[in-house]
Amino acid sequence: MLRTFKTLSSKAAAELDGELMSSGAFSIDQLMELAGLAVAQAIYKEYPPREKTPNNVLVLVGPGNNGGDGLVASRHLRLWGYSPYLYYPKKSSRLELYGNLLTQLNDLGVSDYESWSDIQEKNLLKNTELIVDSLFGFSFKPPVRSPFDAVLKYLSENHRFLPPIVSVDIPSGWDVDTGAGAIDIHPAMLVSLTAPKPCAQKFVESEGAVSHYLGGRFINQKIATKYGIEDLVNSYKGNDMIVKL
Amino acid sequence: MLRTFKTLSSKAAAELDGELMSSGAFSIDQLMELAGLAVAQAIYKEYPPREKTPNNVLVLVGPGNNGGDGLVASRHLRLWGYSPYLYYPKKSSRLELYGNLLTQLNDLGVSDYESWSDIQEKNLLKNTELIVDSLFGFSFKPPVRSPFDAVLKYLSENHRFLPPIVSVDIPSGWDVDTGAGAIDIHPAMLVSLTAPKPCAQKFVESEGAVSHYLGGRFINQKIATKYGIEDLVNSYKGNDMIVKL
Repeated sequence: MLRTFKTLSSKAAAELDGELMSSGAFSIDQLMELAGLAVAQAIYKEYPPREKTPNNVLVLVGPGNNGGDGLVASRHLRLWGYSPYLYYPKKSSRLELYGNLLTQLNDLGVSDYESWSDIQEKNLLKNTELIVDSLFGFSFKPPVRSPFDAVLKYLSENHRFLPPIVSVDIPSGWDVDTGAGAIDIHPAMLVSLTAPKPCAQKFVESEGAVSHYLGGRFINQKIATKYGIEDLVNSYKGNDMIVKL
Repeated sequence: MLRTFKTLSSKAAAELDGELMSSGAFSIDQLMELAGLAVAQAIYKEYPPREKTPNNVLVLVGPGNNGGDGLVASRHLRLWGYSPYLYYPKKSSRLELYGNLLTQLNDLGVSDYESWSDIQEKNLLKNTELIVDSLFGFSFKPPVRSPFDAVLKYLSENHRFLPPIVSVDIPSGWDVDTGAGAIDIHPAMLVSLTAPKPCAQKFVESEGAVSHYLGGRFINQKIATKYGIEDLVNSYKGNDMIVKL
């Protein structure tokens, strides 16, 4: 893994995102589709599905855009032979898109759970081989509020007995800019979107870190130059939507 | 190339499309992003870009959703090292999305031309290595109207001297259900979306046909069964978004 790379602060990431959707003319549907697809492709590369029994994947879905990325990733994973199921406790109606993404998943036979104790009582984690953490993204500010504190505490306290965690954009519960863990989960893999956030630096130095991917191949040179992320934007090969850092 | 495959009539294709966007809860932005990406991936597989000089690709953009697929494909091709330019004579404001996709392309340095004679006078075809035909899709009804008749006539009359044509969903000018050519262009490659239309049968039997791809991997089993396209939907391998038929 690359030990040093350019990062974007939470403030810069929010600005770049706003720019993509205003002057850049991208819609949230488009960006979320491309981001979620990149997350799914990185997972496919690092944890390929088995031929016969589908891999059970628990996807933790937050109330905002990071959760939306997780919903899109779940759809592609399902189509590629995985068997995802969702912990999705707080369904925001801020974007109609979130509800639509969930309908698409339900139509593919993907179940969603609203209660963490339900998942525990049914012992679903026992046969789960991967956990996708799409709870919080670059706009996360501590503290972690209910009901997300319970699941993050569980992941933190039981991390030696759990399947690998793949975090989307940031390890949920970590401070975006310092990496300080309000609750300290231990992802094995991080998929940074557009550019790593400063907390990715703590991730690559952490004991359990196995791989770090970059996704979000939709940045033009003008934006790349403005935010000083040309090297990252130019690091994709061929027609890949992801690159291993 | 497969000589026989299940096809969807123009009427059935329109119904399926409507179903995806109503009960299926897909947005047009999502579907167009996935369709255009599939087109670009098929082109990358069949006509990979050179390392040094970028391949010039002329993309013919129609006024509707087929044109939108071409705009999305152009963006991905540009990011992957091709040098696309557009013939886009009739910009419909029916969907804000079309204008947004064009802005995204212009931000990547992709030029668009509104006049076919401009492209001819500048002799741009001389250095063009591929033509993407995204003029008309499954809702096309003859006759071909101005200004599209001029470019299709040109492609038809000069086909022996032109670079390969890649048609998106249907060869433009061909009757969707019979394959009868109001104006008879000769694509080398066809990318069918969701399922081939009946005119794809004429394509695979045509003299110049080199390859036939299927894209649009977002159909659930219920819809696949309803429209009798399970074999097509289940023919994708691994995490591919396209499959060569």
